[in-house]
Amino acid sequence: MKKLIFAFLALACAGTLRATVRTETVEYRQGDTTLVGFVACDDAFQGPRPGVLIVPQWMGLTDYEKHRAEMIAQLGYVAFCADIYGNGVRPQNTREAGALAGKYKSNRKLLRARVNAALDAMRRQPLVDPKRVAAIGYCFGGTTVIELARSGADVSGVVCFHGGLDSPTPADGKNIKCRVLVCHGADDPLSSPKNIAAFENEMRKGGVDWQLNKYGGAVHSFTQPDAGSDNSKGAAYNEKADQRSWEAMKQFLAEIFK
Amino acid sequence: MKKLIFAFLALACAGTLRATVRTETVEYRQGDTTLVGFVACDDAFQGPRPGVLIVPQWMGLTDYEKHRAEMIAQLGYVAFCADIYGNGVRPQNTREAGALAGKYKSNRKLLRARVNAALDAMRRQPLVDPKRVAAIGYCFGGTTVIELARSGADVSGVVCFHGGLDSPTPADGKNIKCRVLVCHGADDPLSSPKNIAAFENEMRKGGVDWQLNKYGGAVHSFTQPDAGSDNSKGAAYNEKADQRSWEAMKQFLAEIFK
Repeated sequence: MKKLIFAFLALACAGTLRATVRTETVEYRQGDTTLVGFVACDDAFQGPRPGVLIVPQWMGLTDYEKHRAEMIAQLGYVAFCADIYGNGVRPQNTREAGALAGKYKSNRKLLRARVNAALDAMRRQPLVDPKRVAAIGYCFGGTTVIELARSGADVSGVVCFHGGLDSPTPADGKNIKCRVLVCHGADDPLSSPKNIAAFENEMRKGGVDWQLNKYGGAVHSFTQPDAGSDNSKGAAYNEKADQRSWEAMKQFLAEIFK
Repeated sequence: MKKLIFAFLALACAGTLRATVRTETVEYRQGDTTLVGFVACDDAFQGPRPGVLIVPQWMGLTDYEKHRAEMIAQLGYVAFCADIYGNGVRPQNTREAGALAGKYKSNRKLLRARVNAALDAMRRQPLVDPKRVAAIGYCFGGTTVIELARSGADVSGVVCFHGGLDSPTPADGKNIKCRVLVCHGADDPLSSPKNIAAFENEMRKGGVDWQLNKYGGAVHSFTQPDAGSDNSKGAAYNEKADQRSWEAMKQFLAEIFK
């Protein structure tokens, strides 16, 4: 019997090792603007599956988001990285990124249109079960997935990693139909206690199914290895908070898609 | 091959079905006081394993804590329910419970002595790996496991479910050597935003590895089915928050014991 169990396990492991993640770029449009998404799916899984939209940080699509897409694909979902800025529009440095993200943050209507266009494009992907979709986002992308929820989008859930939580129109919390998980650095200097309290009140007043996980010792960008390790800069990688928030997200996705 | 896989799976399932949780009471002492703990372990697991101390709510050991002990045992740990009040000392109603819990909350030295005595008694259990121990607690028990951490106890981690977080001696946060997870109802009326902010600052100043999960729509006692479902009473069961916090605890225990 022992040998047979080993044979069974060996087969199972070989299956895992053979797993391959396929990626491709996908053009889609919002109004007159051409946008370019990035899709990842793992051939180790078969048939239609939930789709997880990934909204990039303020630099736009980088290797960071592509890597997250592969990780999401390996969980058995189709990952789709949104393009908020438009084809070829990429900030060259943090100053440009701040200006560009700021443009969308001060035009939430456009931001919502862009992220909803990405959601629609993801739904059209052949392997995506269009009734089972969620969105996650980092920093500016975290802000954006909360805006997606505030737009009343028909998604099962959104996960915001170290995103800005403030809203110029907090009454829009009432539009939110999906579950919301916020993973936040307890020492993130970009969110004041007042900002966080306002967000919590927006969720309460909106009757939202929400959760907020605070990670002690974590500042802004805690999931981003390139952010270094110096908390005094206000943005730094924190391996524990990264892993814990990823596990929380996995649990959240398992719950909303079960 | 298919048949053999089925045979393997059938065997594995049978093992699970045969699993039995054994429970027993254990006498131990703190000073001159005799205390009676309750131990649960699952014979489906073999050999020494981590121990998880469970500190009861203000009513003392009830079927609620015994059920949690069985759930913890089924995760592959030894569960040990602490007795804080002493053998036979049991409040008969919430008024008496409030008075009794209040006595210990206003005598944190005694509270720490009682919970440390329980920890020591758990460590002496034959199946407990004495180097791998943690503590969880509900309501008054949640407060108590934070006090255990503040006492400088050598545990891997503590999980507080809807416990009071305030401290008369916040400088004791510096004594904390273990990881801390707080699972809290976002609408718990027993913890003011000021209380929570003070707790966060205690953790920050103490350099603690801490996390705080806030569950939207949850009030006090959200893990306690007997608490009913009327949030307006300030204490009510919340199935989602119960399940989510349990999953968070499982993840936390897996991390600290890996």
